[in-house]
Amino acid sequence: MAITFHVRHRNGAARVGLLTTPHGAVETPMFMPVGTQATVKGLTPDQLRAAGARIILGNTYHLTLRPGDELVRDMGGLHRFMGWDGPILTDSGGFQVFSLAEQRKITDQGARFRSHIDGALLELTPERAVEIQQNLGSDIAMVLDECPPGDSAPEAMRAAVRRTILWAERCKAHHTRADQALLAIVQGGTDQSLRAECAKELVAMDFPGYALGGFSVGEAPEAMHAALPGCAALLPEGKPRYLMGVGRPEDLLAGVAAGIDLFDCVMPTRSGRNALAFTADGPLRLRNAKHRRDPAPLESGCDCYTCAHFGRAYLHHLFAADEMLGPTLLSLHNVAYYLRLMNEARAAVSEGRFAAFRAECLGRLGERGA
Amino acid sequence: MAITFHVRHRNGAARVGLLTTPHGAVETPMFMPVGTQATVKGLTPDQLRAAGARIILGNTYHLTLRPGDELVRDMGGLHRFMGWDGPILTDSGGFQVFSLAEQRKITDQGARFRSHIDGALLELTPERAVEIQQNLGSDIAMVLDECPPGDSAPEAMRAAVRRTILWAERCKAHHTRADQALLAIVQGGTDQSLRAECAKELVAMDFPGYALGGFSVGEAPEAMHAALPGCAALLPEGKPRYLMGVGRPEDLLAGVAAGIDLFDCVMPTRSGRNALAFTADGPLRLRNAKHRRDPAPLESGCDCYTCAHFGRAYLHHLFAADEMLGPTLLSLHNVAYYLRLMNEARAAVSEGRFAAFRAECLGRLGERGA
Repeated sequence: MAITFHVRHRNGAARVGLLTTPHGAVETPMFMPVGTQATVKGLTPDQLRAAGARIILGNTYHLTLRPGDELVRDMGGLHRFMGWDGPILTDSGGFQVFSLAEQRKITDQGARFRSHIDGALLELTPERAVEIQQNLGSDIAMVLDECPPGDSAPEAMRAAVRRTILWAERCKAHHTRADQALLAIVQGGTDQSLRAECAKELVAMDFPGYALGGFSVGEAPEAMHAALPGCAALLPEGKPRYLMGVGRPEDLLAGVAAGIDLFDCVMPTRSGRNALAFTADGPLRLRNAKHRRDPAPLESGCDCYTCAHFGRAYLHHLFAADEMLGPTLLSLHNVAYYLRLMNEARAAVSEGRFAAFRAECLGRLGERGA
Repeated sequence: MAITFHVRHRNGAARVGLLTTPHGAVETPMFMPVGTQATVKGLTPDQLRAAGARIILGNTYHLTLRPGDELVRDMGGLHRFMGWDGPILTDSGGFQVFSLAEQRKITDQGARFRSHIDGALLELTPERAVEIQQNLGSDIAMVLDECPPGDSAPEAMRAAVRRTILWAERCKAHHTRADQALLAIVQGGTDQSLRAECAKELVAMDFPGYALGGFSVGEAPEAMHAALPGCAALLPEGKPRYLMGVGRPEDLLAGVAAGIDLFDCVMPTRSGRNALAFTADGPLRLRNAKHRRDPAPLESGCDCYTCAHFGRAYLHHLFAADEMLGPTLLSLHNVAYYLRLMNEARAAVSEGRFAAFRAECLGRLGERGA
């Protein structure tokens, strides 16, 4: 088995677990910073690790386009290529084909599309998605899924689920790498019976872990929060559960409450580049003139490198002067904030006080997610 | 005395010294990375220190425009504002007024100009240059000088020298900060007799150190290399000598040979952002397709973070994908390279073999500077 997973504590549906991978163990619930193009934007692997990152995500679609998965393989695999020796999860590229690629055409065979970089005509089949991820050498790979918008018509959603099941089977049949786990993805939007049908078929195929897909696409947060407990309960208790592409701090807390173990999102780094800092008391917009003369750190009590060394006035200045260090320092803090939130969530679950912890967090966040 | 300086070893005109400042001691010859806007572009203070940086430079002109020297003072001074607890040298802003400001008008009183950021009408007098630097709180401040292009007519060069002497006197009279040293700047272009006249007047004023200005502006490297020994010899033996704004690795070696102690230049960081890496065997252009599949580090034997963790193929990919980490990692290596060159130069001077060391360096660099 490439990965193992053990639940250590439960608190309602929430749980604390230990996920082992060929590149080390990860406590869950855990957030995975996104390294789309073989780099978590603006941060070195050392900075990532110091911010608390233990497992990161790479994007199959981007990496096969550039620099190419065979090149990454020839350079010793993604870990060595990008200098990250911890666990890596790669997505299957399905979501990006739907959100980035041009002139896409989907059939049961796979997806044909044009590269958003150079317009080249490409094909992503279930088999190819597995090959790419085997070349990248991630610890955890994902099956190719069809990921329709959340507001798709019922028939479209049903067709996507059928194809997702078909493709999961083909991915599993094609996967050979013993030091890599292949996880399945449950689709079905907010239709609980469709999710249940999809989950039932995939669980019967006995994957080592399961993801919930389609939740970052188009739904209102409230609908997602309402759907998560039922969806998570469709997945095996003893295997890791991954909520793909989600989300805001309050969404992660809703996920943990529902029994989710893994999360990923570009939000901490994308927001950091856009001068938005996450804090326990809600977001700070560092371009705002009110920060111009404020020597306080982004967040008192935060032990990240940014908060330990710099004040808001300095960070405001870096963005006003368009200096690269601004995005780097804010991305660093935001990643550290997300990982600290997961640390605190694990402690709360272990100590049987997760509901109170979540309520307190939401209160401080200004009930944005309540 | 805010600074002390002791020459410890000599080898021809080259020397190894120890410069003490209120924020720590610095071995010389030393290169100072440039932190124009209160940040060495793309690098954190921790990364800078790990790359070997011991003293950095801040730009008076940029900082008074944005965020403002009074704001920096109110935030606890430049060291605290930017999170750098080592020594800082600030220039006087004269060079930037000549190279960046618009609609400038220079009189004996000072320089009037428009900000290149917002067009505001500003005045930089010798007294104001001192006030700004006292607000910034650098360890070493520079007098305001007039810095004409190297190819200026003899009368213009002579007028600039006269004004530089006049302004140095006014800066000295206005300077009060006991924990800051004020250094004078010798102008005069490539006219050795004019340099001698300028140096004589300034040396008589007994500054704690002297800079050679005007060498980064317009001259051919060969003319600078030829002029440096004579110019450096005009300056007191027992005080630090600083060659402003210079230069390429071979220019630093020429400076060390002439008895220069301090250097600064944007080249390592600017080149790093433009995908050019300095190595002992000459520059590498990382955008070049030949690096696409090369797993070798930028420079074998380099102990910088970049070379210890990443190959050329990865760095090529980062620039191809327009990822922020490319400029950061190349700037880091280039700064480390410049500082290693100075480390090796100090060792060679201490061991009485600087001429051979310089010849070997120039040979490996492809005699570009020979």
